[in-house]
Amino acid sequence: MPMVQITMLEGRTADQKRKIAKRITDVLVEEAGTRRDAIVIAFHEVSKESYASAGELIIDKTPK
Amino acid sequence: MPMVQITMLEGRTADQKRKIAKRITDVLVEEAGTRRDAIVIAFHEVSKESYASAGELIIDKTPK
Amino acid sequence: MPMVQITMLEGRTADQKRKIAKRITDVLVEEAGTRRDAIVIAFHEVSKESYASAGELIIDKTPK
Amino acid sequence: MPMVQITMLEGRTADQKRKIAKRITDVLVEEAGTRRDAIVIAFHEVSKESYASAGELIIDKTPK
Amino acid sequence: MPMVQITMLEGRTADQKRKIAKRITDVLVEEAGTRRDAIVIAFHEVSKESYASAGELIIDKTPK
Amino acid sequence: MPMVQITMLEGRTADQKRKIAKRITDVLVEEAGTRRDAIVIAFHEVSKESYASAGELIIDKTPK
Repeated sequence: MPMVQITMLEGRTADQKRKIAKRITDVLVEEAGTRRDAIVIAFHEVSKESYASAGELIIDKTPK
Repeated sequence: MPMVQITMLEGRTADQKRKIAKRITDVLVEEAGTRRDAIVIAFHEVSKESYASAGELIIDKTPK
Repeated sequence: MPMVQITMLEGRTADQKRKIAKRITDVLVEEAGTRRDAIVIAFHEVSKESYASAGELIIDKTPK
Repeated sequence: MPMVQITMLEGRTADQKRKIAKRITDVLVEEAGTRRDAIVIAFHEVSKESYASAGELIIDKTPK
Repeated sequence: MPMVQITMLEGRTADQKRKIAKRITDVLVEEAGTRRDAIVIAFHEVSKESYASAGELIIDKTPK
Repeated sequence: MPMVQITMLEGRTADQKRKIAKRITDVLVEEAGTRRDAIVIAFHEVSKESYASAGELIIDKTPK
Protein backbone atom coordinates (compact mmCIF):
# COMPACT_ATOMS: atom_id res chain seq x y z
CA MET A 1 0.00 0.00 0.00
CA PRO A 2 2.82 2.39 -0.77
CA MET A 3 2.28 6.09 -1.31
CA VAL A 4 4.89 7.55 -3.61
CA GLN A 5 5.43 11.29 -3.70
CA ILE A 6 7.69 12.66 -6.39
CA THR A 7 8.79 16.28 -6.15
CA MET A 8 10.33 17.47 -9.40
CA LEU A 9 10.56 20.45 -11.69
CA GLU A 10 7.45 21.19 -13.72
CA GLY A 11 7.61 20.64 -17.45
CA ARG A 12 7.26 16.91 -17.94
CA THR A 13 4.52 15.87 -20.35
CA ALA A 14 1.56 13.72 -19.42
CA ASP A 15 3.17 10.95 -21.42
CA GLN A 16 6.36 11.11 -19.37
CA LYS A 17 4.34 10.98 -16.16
CA ARG A 18 2.25 8.11 -17.58
CA LYS A 19 5.37 6.04 -18.20
CA ILE A 20 6.98 6.94 -14.89
CA ALA A 21 3.83 6.02 -12.95
CA LYS A 22 3.42 2.73 -14.78
CA ARG A 23 7.04 1.70 -14.39
CA ILE A 24 7.39 2.70 -10.71
CA THR A 25 4.22 0.75 -10.00
CA ASP A 26 5.73 -2.26 -11.79
CA VAL A 27 8.88 -1.95 -9.66
CA LEU A 28 6.90 -1.91 -6.41
CA VAL A 29 4.76 -4.87 -7.43
CA GLU A 30 7.81 -6.89 -8.46
CA GLU A 31 10.24 -5.95 -5.70
CA ALA A 32 8.05 -5.11 -2.70
CA GLY A 33 5.31 -7.65 -3.29
CA THR A 34 2.63 -4.97 -3.22
CA ARG A 35 -0.80 -5.34 -4.77
CA ARG A 36 -0.91 -3.22 -7.92
CA ASP A 37 -4.13 -1.43 -7.07
CA ALA A 38 -2.86 -0.40 -3.64
CA ILE A 39 -0.15 1.84 -5.08
CA VAL A 40 -0.74 5.57 -5.40
CA ILE A 41 1.72 8.02 -6.92
CA ALA A 42 1.56 11.81 -6.88
CA PHE A 43 3.76 14.22 -8.78
CA HIS A 44 4.38 17.51 -6.99
CA GLU A 45 5.72 19.77 -9.70
CA VAL A 46 7.48 22.93 -8.66
CA SER A 47 8.84 25.83 -10.69
CA LYS A 48 12.54 26.63 -11.09
CA GLU A 49 11.99 29.41 -8.57
CA SER A 50 10.78 26.95 -5.98
CA TYR A 51 13.53 24.37 -6.15
CA ALA A 52 17.10 24.65 -4.98
CA SER A 53 20.14 22.46 -4.79
CA ALA A 54 23.43 23.33 -3.17
CA GLY A 55 21.81 26.48 -1.82
CA GLU A 56 20.95 27.91 -5.20
CA LEU A 57 17.56 28.15 -6.92
CA ILE A 58 17.37 26.20 -10.18
CA ILE A 59 16.36 29.42 -11.96
CA ASP A 60 19.73 30.89 -11.04
CA LYS A 61 21.65 27.92 -12.41
CA THR A 62 20.42 28.12 -15.97
CA PRO A 63 21.59 28.19 -18.69
CA LYS A 64 24.51 26.43 -17.06
CA MET B 1 1.13 19.95 17.14
CA PRO B 2 0.23 17.78 14.18
CA MET B 3 0.94 18.77 10.62
CA VAL B 4 -1.55 17.26 8.23
CA GLN B 5 -0.77 17.09 4.54
CA ILE B 6 -3.54 16.02 2.21
CA THR B 7 -2.67 15.20 -1.38
CA MET B 8 -5.76 14.99 -3.55
CA LEU B 9 -7.09 15.82 -6.99
CA GLU B 10 -7.74 19.48 -7.65
CA GLY B 11 -11.32 20.59 -8.02
CA ARG B 12 -12.70 20.79 -4.51
CA THR B 13 -14.32 24.11 -3.62
CA ALA B 14 -13.15 26.38 -0.83
CA ASP B 15 -16.22 25.35 1.07
CA GLN B 16 -15.35 21.68 0.85
CA LYS B 17 -11.83 22.42 2.09
CA ARG B 18 -13.26 24.63 4.84
CA LYS B 19 -15.37 21.78 6.15
CA ILE B 20 -12.63 19.19 5.80
CA ALA B 21 -10.14 21.39 7.68
CA LYS B 22 -12.59 22.13 10.46
CA ARG B 23 -13.66 18.55 10.92
CA ILE B 24 -10.16 17.01 10.77
CA THR B 25 -9.06 19.56 13.35
CA ASP B 26 -12.00 18.54 15.56
CA VAL B 27 -10.96 14.88 15.22
CA LEU B 28 -7.39 15.58 16.28
CA VAL B 29 -8.47 17.71 19.22
CA GLU B 30 -10.92 15.07 20.40
CA GLU B 31 -8.93 11.91 19.73
CA ALA B 32 -5.29 12.97 20.02
CA GLY B 33 -5.65 15.53 22.77
CA THR B 34 -3.99 18.21 20.68
CA ARG B 35 -4.43 21.93 21.25
CA ARG B 36 -6.64 23.31 18.50
CA ASP B 37 -4.37 26.17 17.55
CA ALA B 38 -1.38 23.87 17.15
CA ILE B 39 -2.91 22.02 14.19
CA VAL B 40 -1.98 22.97 10.65
CA ILE B 41 -3.44 21.40 7.54
CA ALA B 42 -2.28 21.85 3.96
CA PHE B 43 -4.03 20.64 0.82
CA HIS B 44 -1.69 19.71 -2.01
CA GLU B 45 -3.93 19.59 -5.02
CA VAL B 46 -2.67 17.85 -8.13
CA SER B 47 -4.12 17.50 -11.60
CA LYS B 48 -5.43 14.25 -13.08
CA GLU B 49 -2.20 14.11 -15.06
CA SER B 50 -0.16 14.14 -11.87
CA TYR B 51 -1.89 11.43 -9.92
CA ALA B 52 -1.88 7.71 -10.52
CA SER B 53 -3.29 4.63 -8.92
CA ALA B 54 -2.61 1.05 -9.92
CA GLY B 55 0.01 2.36 -12.33
CA GLU B 56 -2.38 4.45 -14.36
CA LEU B 57 -2.80 8.23 -14.42
CA ILE B 58 -6.24 9.40 -13.30
CA ILE B 59 -6.64 11.23 -16.62
CA ASP B 60 -6.46 7.87 -18.37
CA LYS B 61 -9.14 6.33 -16.19
CA THR B 62 -11.92 8.74 -17.06
CA PRO B 63 -14.70 8.56 -18.04
CA LYS B 64 -14.59 5.15 -16.45
CA MET C 1 -8.01 9.12 -3.82
CA PRO C 2 -6.51 11.30 -1.12
CA MET C 3 -3.28 10.46 0.62
CA VAL C 4 -3.20 11.88 4.12
CA GLN C 5 0.10 12.23 5.93
CA ILE C 6 -0.02 13.17 9.59
CA THR C 7 3.20 14.18 11.30
CA MET C 8 2.83 14.22 15.07
CA LEU C 9 4.64 13.43 18.28
CA GLU C 10 4.99 9.74 19.07
CA GLY C 11 3.02 8.38 21.99
CA ARG C 12 -0.51 7.95 20.72
CA THR C 13 -1.98 4.49 21.25
CA ALA C 14 -3.16 2.22 18.49
CA ASP C 15 -6.67 2.93 19.60
CA GLN C 16 -6.21 6.66 19.21
CA LYS C 17 -4.82 6.15 15.72
CA ARG C 18 -7.65 3.74 14.91
CA LYS C 19 -10.24 6.36 15.77
CA ILE C 20 -8.39 9.17 14.01
CA ALA C 21 -8.03 7.11 10.83
CA LYS C 22 -11.66 6.07 10.83
CA ARG C 23 -12.98 9.55 11.48
CA ILE C 24 -10.73 11.35 8.98
CA THR C 25 -11.77 8.81 6.37
CA ASP C 26 -15.41 9.52 7.19
CA VAL C 27 -14.77 13.25 6.77
CA LEU C 28 -13.21 12.80 3.34
CA VAL C 29 -15.97 10.50 2.15
CA GLU C 30 -18.66 12.90 3.34
CA GLU C 31 -17.11 16.23 2.37
CA ALA C 32 -14.87 15.45 -0.61
CA GLY C 33 -17.00 12.77 -2.20
CA THR C 34 -14.13 10.30 -2.21
CA ARG C 35 -14.56 6.53 -2.39
CA ARG C 36 -13.81 5.08 1.04
CA ASP C 37 -11.39 2.45 -0.15
CA ALA C 38 -9.32 4.99 -2.08
CA ILE C 39 -8.22 6.82 1.07
CA VAL C 40 -4.87 6.07 2.65
CA ILE C 41 -3.57 7.63 5.84
CA ALA C 42 -0.07 7.39 7.29
CA PHE C 43 1.07 8.56 10.70
CA HIS C 44 4.67 9.77 10.82
CA GLU C 45 5.50 9.83 14.50
CA VAL C 46 8.52 11.78 15.61
CA SER C 47 10.18 12.14 18.99
CA LYS C 48 10.22 15.33 21.06
CA GLU C 49 13.80 15.78 19.91
CA SER C 50 12.70 15.80 16.29
CA TYR C 51 9.90 18.29 16.43
CA ALA C 52 10.08 22.03 16.93
CA SER C 53 7.72 24.94 17.06
CA ALA C 54 8.64 28.58 17.33
CA GLY C 55 12.26 27.57 16.86
CA GLU C 56 12.40 25.37 19.93
CA LEU C 57 12.46 21.57 20.16
CA ILE C 58 9.47 20.11 22.00
CA ILE C 59 11.87 18.38 24.39
CA ASP C 60 13.06 21.81 25.52
CA LYS C 61 9.54 23.05 26.17
CA THR C 62 8.52 20.46 28.72
CA PRO C 63 7.29 20.44 31.42
CA LYS C 64 5.94 23.80 30.43
CA MET D 1 16.61 16.62 -9.43
CA PRO D 2 13.63 14.65 -8.21
CA MET D 3 13.07 13.81 -4.58
CA VAL D 4 11.13 10.60 -4.18
CA GLN D 5 9.44 9.81 -0.89
CA ILE D 6 7.99 6.36 -0.46
CA THR D 7 5.74 5.71 2.52
CA MET D 8 5.18 2.01 3.05
CA LEU D 9 4.81 -0.63 5.73
CA GLU D 10 7.99 -1.59 7.52
CA GLY D 11 9.40 -5.03 6.90
CA ARG D 12 11.13 -4.85 3.54
CA THR D 13 14.74 -6.04 3.55
CA ALA D 14 17.69 -3.90 2.64
CA ASP D 15 17.94 -5.90 -0.54
CA GLN D 16 14.39 -5.10 -1.53
CA LYS D 17 15.00 -1.40 -0.90
CA ARG D 18 18.29 -1.63 -2.83
CA LYS D 19 16.50 -2.95 -5.89
CA ILE D 20 13.60 -0.54 -5.61
CA ALA D 21 15.96 2.45 -5.30
CA LYS D 22 18.07 1.34 -8.24
CA ARG D 23 15.14 0.64 -10.50
CA ILE D 24 13.16 3.80 -9.67
CA THR D 25 16.30 5.80 -10.34
CA ASP D 26 16.65 4.05 -13.71
CA VAL D 27 13.04 4.93 -14.53
CA LEU D 28 13.55 8.62 -13.75
CA VAL D 29 16.77 8.80 -15.74
CA GLU D 30 15.17 7.10 -18.73
CA GLU D 31 11.74 8.73 -18.72
CA ALA D 32 12.28 12.14 -17.12
CA GLY D 33 15.73 12.87 -18.50
CA THR D 34 17.13 13.47 -15.03
CA ARG D 35 20.81 13.21 -14.14
CA ARG D 36 21.33 10.02 -12.15
CA ASP D 37 23.24 11.64 -9.31
CA ALA D 38 20.55 14.26 -8.77
CA ILE D 39 17.96 11.71 -7.68
CA VAL D 40 17.34 11.07 -4.01
CA ILE D 41 14.93 8.51 -2.62
CA ALA D 42 13.79 8.08 0.98
CA PHE D 43 11.76 5.23 2.40
CA HIS D 44 9.48 6.23 5.26
CA GLU D 45 8.55 2.96 6.86
CA VAL D 46 5.58 2.88 9.18
CA SER D 47 4.14 0.13 11.37
CA LYS D 48 0.81 -1.58 10.77
CA GLU D 49 -0.55 0.56 13.58
CA SER D 50 0.39 3.72 11.73
CA TYR D 51 -1.08 3.01 8.34
CA ALA D 52 -4.70 2.87 7.32
CA SER D 53 -6.70 2.32 4.20
CA ALA D 54 -10.43 2.61 3.81
CA GLY D 55 -10.56 3.98 7.34
CA GLU D 56 -9.07 0.90 8.97
CA LEU D 57 -5.58 0.41 10.40
CA ILE D 58 -3.58 -2.30 8.63
CA ILE D 59 -3.13 -4.06 11.98
CA ASP D 60 -6.88 -4.54 12.13
CA LYS D 61 -7.05 -6.04 8.65
CA THR D 62 -4.73 -8.98 9.24
CA PRO D 63 -4.80 -11.89 8.84
CA LYS D 64 -7.34 -11.09 6.19
CA MET E 1 21.90 14.51 1.93
CA PRO E 2 18.92 16.21 3.46
CA MET E 3 15.73 16.87 1.55
CA VAL E 4 13.94 19.92 2.85
CA GLN E 5 10.29 20.45 2.00
CA ILE E 6 8.76 23.77 2.95
CA THR E 7 4.98 24.14 2.73
CA MET E 8 3.95 27.76 2.94
CA LEU E 9 1.46 30.27 1.57
CA GLU E 10 2.10 31.40 -1.98
CA GLY E 11 3.22 34.97 -2.53
CA ARG E 12 6.89 35.04 -1.65
CA THR E 13 9.13 36.49 -4.34
CA ALA E 14 11.93 34.61 -6.05
CA ASP E 15 14.34 36.74 -4.10
CA GLN E 16 12.83 35.71 -0.79
CA LYS E 17 13.04 32.05 -1.80
CA ARG E 18 16.60 32.59 -3.04
CA LYS E 19 17.68 33.88 0.36
CA ILE E 20 15.78 31.24 2.30
CA ALA E 21 17.30 28.44 0.21
CA LYS E 22 20.80 29.80 0.56
CA ARG E 23 20.57 30.36 4.28
CA ILE E 24 18.89 27.04 5.13
CA THR E 25 21.59 25.29 3.12
CA ASP E 26 24.22 27.20 5.11
CA VAL E 27 22.58 26.06 8.36
CA LEU E 28 22.61 22.41 7.33
CA VAL E 29 26.21 22.54 6.17
CA GLU E 30 27.32 24.22 9.39
CA GLU E 31 25.21 22.34 11.93
CA ALA E 32 24.60 18.92 10.36
CA GLY E 33 27.93 18.50 8.62
CA THR E 34 26.25 17.90 5.28
CA ARG E 35 27.95 18.39 1.92
CA ARG E 36 26.54 21.54 0.33
CA ASP E 37 25.76 19.98 -3.01
CA ALA E 38 23.80 17.14 -1.41
CA ILE E 39 21.10 19.46 -0.07
CA VAL E 40 17.86 19.91 -1.97
CA ILE E 41 15.06 22.23 -0.97
CA ALA E 42 11.56 22.45 -2.44
CA PHE E 43 8.95 25.08 -1.72
CA HIS E 44 5.38 23.81 -1.91
CA GLU E 45 3.31 26.95 -2.12
CA VAL E 46 -0.38 26.71 -1.39
CA SER E 47 -3.18 29.25 -1.63
CA LYS E 48 -5.02 30.73 1.34
CA GLU E 49 -7.87 28.39 0.46
CA SER E 50 -5.62 25.38 0.84
CA TYR E 51 -4.06 26.10 4.19
CA ALA E 52 -5.65 26.00 7.61
CA SER E 53 -4.62 26.51 11.17
CA ALA E 54 -6.75 25.95 14.23
CA GLY E 55 -9.37 24.44 11.98
CA GLU E 56 -9.88 27.57 9.90
CA LEU E 57 -8.75 28.28 6.34
CA ILE E 58 -6.31 31.19 6.07
CA ILE E 59 -8.68 32.86 3.61
CA ASP E 60 -11.28 33.05 6.38
CA LYS E 61 -8.87 34.68 8.82
CA THR E 62 -8.11 37.76 6.77
CA PRO E 63 -8.08 40.66 7.19
CA LYS E 64 -7.49 39.71 10.80
CA MET F 1 2.76 29.51 8.88
CA PRO F 2 5.35 27.33 7.18
CA MET F 3 5.68 23.64 7.83
CA VAL F 4 9.22 22.46 7.30
CA GLN F 5 9.92 18.76 6.82
CA ILE F 6 13.53 17.68 6.82
CA THR F 7 14.34 14.14 5.70
CA MET F 8 17.88 13.18 6.62
CA LEU F 9 20.01 10.30 7.83
CA GLU F 10 19.58 9.41 11.48
CA GLY F 11 22.47 10.12 13.80
CA ARG F 12 22.32 13.82 14.53
CA THR F 13 22.30 14.73 18.21
CA ALA F 14 19.52 16.63 19.94
CA ASP F 15 21.86 19.57 20.11
CA GLN F 16 22.39 19.58 16.36
CA LYS F 17 18.65 19.45 15.77
CA ARG F 18 18.13 22.18 18.38
CA LYS F 19 20.47 24.51 16.51
CA ILE F 20 19.08 23.63 13.10
CA ALA F 21 15.50 24.23 14.27
CA LYS F 22 16.36 27.53 15.87
CA ARG F 23 18.33 28.83 12.92
CA ILE F 24 15.87 27.73 10.22
CA THR F 25 13.11 29.42 12.21
CA ASP F 26 15.21 32.58 12.35
CA VAL F 27 15.67 32.44 8.57
CA LEU F 28 11.93 32.13 7.93
CA VAL F 29 11.09 34.95 10.32
CA GLU F 30 13.69 37.24 8.76
CA GLU F 31 13.24 36.38 5.08
CA ALA F 32 9.63 35.28 4.76
CA GLY F 33 8.08 37.63 7.28
CA THR F 34 6.50 34.75 9.17
CA ARG F 35 5.41 34.89 12.79
CA ARG F 36 7.88 32.89 14.86
CA ASP F 37 5.30 30.84 16.69
CA ALA F 38 3.61 29.79 13.46
CA ILE F 39 6.63 27.81 12.27
CA VAL F 40 6.79 24.07 12.79
CA ILE F 41 9.71 21.87 11.85
CA ALA F 42 9.85 18.07 11.81
CA PHE F 43 12.91 15.91 11.30
CA HIS F 44 12.21 12.61 9.55
CA GLU F 45 15.29 10.56 10.23
CA VAL F 46 15.90 7.50 8.11
CA SER F 47 18.53 4.79 8.29
CA LYS F 48 21.30 4.29 5.73
CA GLU F 49 19.25 1.39 4.40
CA SER F 50 16.32 3.68 3.72
CA TYR F 51 18.02 6.44 1.84
CA ALA F 52 19.48 6.40 -1.63
CA SER F 53 21.15 8.78 -3.98
CA ALA F 54 22.12 8.12 -7.57
CA GLY F 55 20.27 4.82 -7.33
CA GLU F 56 22.41 3.43 -4.52
CA LEU F 57 21.52 3.01 -0.84
CA ILE F 58 23.72 5.04 1.50
CA ILE F 59 24.64 1.83 3.31
CA ASP F 60 26.26 0.59 0.11
CA LYS F 61 28.29 3.75 -0.33
CA THR F 62 30.21 3.60 2.93
CA PRO F 63 33.00 3.73 3.80
CA LYS F 64 33.50 5.59 0.57
